[in-house]
Amino acid sequence: MATKNLALASLIGNKTYIDTVFNQVWSQVEVYRAANPQSSLFAMALGNTSQPLPRAVVEALVEAANRLGDSQTYTGYEDTAGNPRLREAISTHYYEQKIGVKIQPEEIFISDGAQSAVVNIQELFAPDNVVAVQNPTYPAFMEGTLLANRPLVYLECTEANGFVPDVPREAVDIIYLCFPNNPTGVIATYEQLQGFVDYARLHQAVIIFDAVYSPFIRNSNTPRSIYEVEGAMECAIEIGSFSKWASFTGLRVGWCTIPETLVIHQTELGELNRLWQVRHGIKFWGPANVAQYGAIAALSSVGQSECQAIVDYYLENTRLIRGGLESIGLKCYGSPNSPFIWVKASQGLSSWEFFKELLESTGIVGVPGNVFGSNGEGFLRLSALGQRRTIEQAVESLASFAMEI
Amino acid sequence: MATKNLALASLIGNKTYIDTVFNQVWSQVEVYRAANPQSSLFAMALGNTSQPLPRAVVEALVEAANRLGDSQTYTGYEDTAGNPRLREAISTHYYEQKIGVKIQPEEIFISDGAQSAVVNIQELFAPDNVVAVQNPTYPAFMEGTLLANRPLVYLECTEANGFVPDVPREAVDIIYLCFPNNPTGVIATYEQLQGFVDYARLHQAVIIFDAVYSPFIRNSNTPRSIYEVEGAMECAIEIGSFSKWASFTGLRVGWCTIPETLVIHQTELGELNRLWQVRHGIKFWGPANVAQYGAIAALSSVGQSECQAIVDYYLENTRLIRGGLESIGLKCYGSPNSPFIWVKASQGLSSWEFFKELLESTGIVGVPGNVFGSNGEGFLRLSALGQRRTIEQAVESLASFAMEI
Repeated sequence: MATKNLALASLIGNKTYIDTVFNQVWSQVEVYRAANPQSSLFAMALGNTSQPLPRAVVEALVEAANRLGDSQTYTGYEDTAGNPRLREAISTHYYEQKIGVKIQPEEIFISDGAQSAVVNIQELFAPDNVVAVQNPTYPAFMEGTLLANRPLVYLECTEANGFVPDVPREAVDIIYLCFPNNPTGVIATYEQLQGFVDYARLHQAVIIFDAVYSPFIRNSNTPRSIYEVEGAMECAIEIGSFSKWASFTGLRVGWCTIPETLVIHQTELGELNRLWQVRHGIKFWGPANVAQYGAIAALSSVGQSECQAIVDYYLENTRLIRGGLESIGLKCYGSPNSPFIWVKASQGLSSWEFFKELLESTGIVGVPGNVFGSNGEGFLRLSALGQRRTIEQAVESLASFAMEI
Repeated sequence: MATKNLALASLIGNKTYIDTVFNQVWSQVEVYRAANPQSSLFAMALGNTSQPLPRAVVEALVEAANRLGDSQTYTGYEDTAGNPRLREAISTHYYEQKIGVKIQPEEIFISDGAQSAVVNIQELFAPDNVVAVQNPTYPAFMEGTLLANRPLVYLECTEANGFVPDVPREAVDIIYLCFPNNPTGVIATYEQLQGFVDYARLHQAVIIFDAVYSPFIRNSNTPRSIYEVEGAMECAIEIGSFSKWASFTGLRVGWCTIPETLVIHQTELGELNRLWQVRHGIKFWGPANVAQYGAIAALSSVGQSECQAIVDYYLENTRLIRGGLESIGLKCYGSPNSPFIWVKASQGLSSWEFFKELLESTGIVGVPGNVFGSNGEGFLRLSALGQRRTIEQAVESLASFAMEI
């Protein structure tokens, strides 16, 4: 008789920690609300989207629904790797026309958003592979590694390095990178990413590049895809998503790019790509067909211009709230090329102390930075993905705030 | 430096076998088509649906799309365990009203169809757990076990036992059962399922019960949920799906029920349920919100009556094609409570020989039964999920067929 220990149980400790911090956040908000029933609350904690779906996407969803309701045009299963027209649209309208790199449709797998893709991709690799994640990090990279019970190495991101880490000092097999970063909002230069690509090629490591915020990049000299960096086609997997720039958080469509030229020790050309195709056929039969039709529409020229307006809206939010924070002397790290603001706590306060002080003084609710890792201590993450009116009122509240800083 | 062997590589052999059989099927079809350009082909190989979405579902999809396109009613992320109204609807309209068992909404997790749920659920269990699958079996149960690199035990299903297996002779930890069965179409009695539940409780095993075809059951004395069997709430996980009875193969909505009372060695009450909740939060954020709204509509009273018509349609298909096969002396196993017909090859032919003979004599395309396991040798699976006109023409073709049987 085999042991009955649960495989997922090892994860509970970490997840409980994150849940505990969030529960503390929500209960502190309740305390504040009870004590200040007249005051406004400005919810800037979660990365949830506020802007409606583009018209082009709504029209595509309605058309798809009607088509599926008609016996003449009904279709059943989609391809498990994703709708071929969507894979083609990402290849052409996203990679070729927006980024300027050549990725074949066959190298693109459609996923139900980035969340599952960034974690599930670890199934490709051997159980003893060592994983490097940024500190602070988006929690899924760390949690997915804990779930897989793999050794974990931290890439230190601090004020000293502008929150862009150096390459690992030890040998690692899998490197998670996310730029524009969540939670810090910073972007990486060509040179910085080239360092990681060179490291990966030297050590036969694979970079898993989370590019979900890349449509927020406005700097012209910043890579928006890892594949803009020389050699990345040989060592990097890229994860994209329609969530934030096309309002698909609820519709759940993303993608995972695995170049045919990505080869690691003991594998053949295209083998990782083929294995992922097999994995799709067994464990995942693609996201909802209607959502994929919506994604195709988001990449049409009309859809892209509507999505551009959504991104512009959030970036203006970012500019406004960052301006408000800086005007009262708070230091904000990270670039303006992201919907997140990474605020340094005033007067050496801890993340939690600063969270409470900002809430009590202004009604603004952020996320204590230590949730994202030890290097997040002393920082707070604010999301600018909310409504403009909320942001403007939060800025007013900041202006009238007599915090001793 | 860790090894770079790929975790998924061990699977390729088996998957290649299944793909090879299917490729042989399609290439044989091409050979037939080239040699008989005037003849009709009756595609009854795949379990793909042909009937359009119910009107109630289409209307819900259109309404949801418009709501998501309006800034006043837009919503972002759904709950990762699924839309609370859908969990409530499955609890009330499916389990309580249709089956007559009490399952709490908190015990139901919404998935992107059954396919991912039946495989991913293995993540709950220890790596050395022994898995039992029926032979023949729906391939995902076996492939998911190979992916997880777990020991595999076969539960023999043959003509002698009417394709319903005995409980394992050895100690196993996880038992996959599927009734109405794919590929054989047979159903299990209360007594047969009680035997498995008793076994599971005695050995602290967990049954993963695939109930996706249960809405096709018309026999009144046949369990449509494992939870109709005494003690199952302590040892069974059930997987459901909207795919076949509500035409959701492309929309991708299913569910996974993990009772709070399901406890295995060294775990607490509700622990498997909580671990799955945690796993959802990290690796899966639910299927498309619009598809979940569609599923809620499928469980409304109007939706249910439209879905009933879809099931009736497929069951009439089953009756017609089975009648046609039996009228020419072919033996069909399995009940009429399923959209699959499991045909015994005539004259001791192999699955492959019979596949070719049926194709060349009638134009009917099935799946050679040996794809589903060694006990499938000598059988062919036909799907009745197609259009009525295809089925009727196939029956005519059978009637005029002078096969020597």
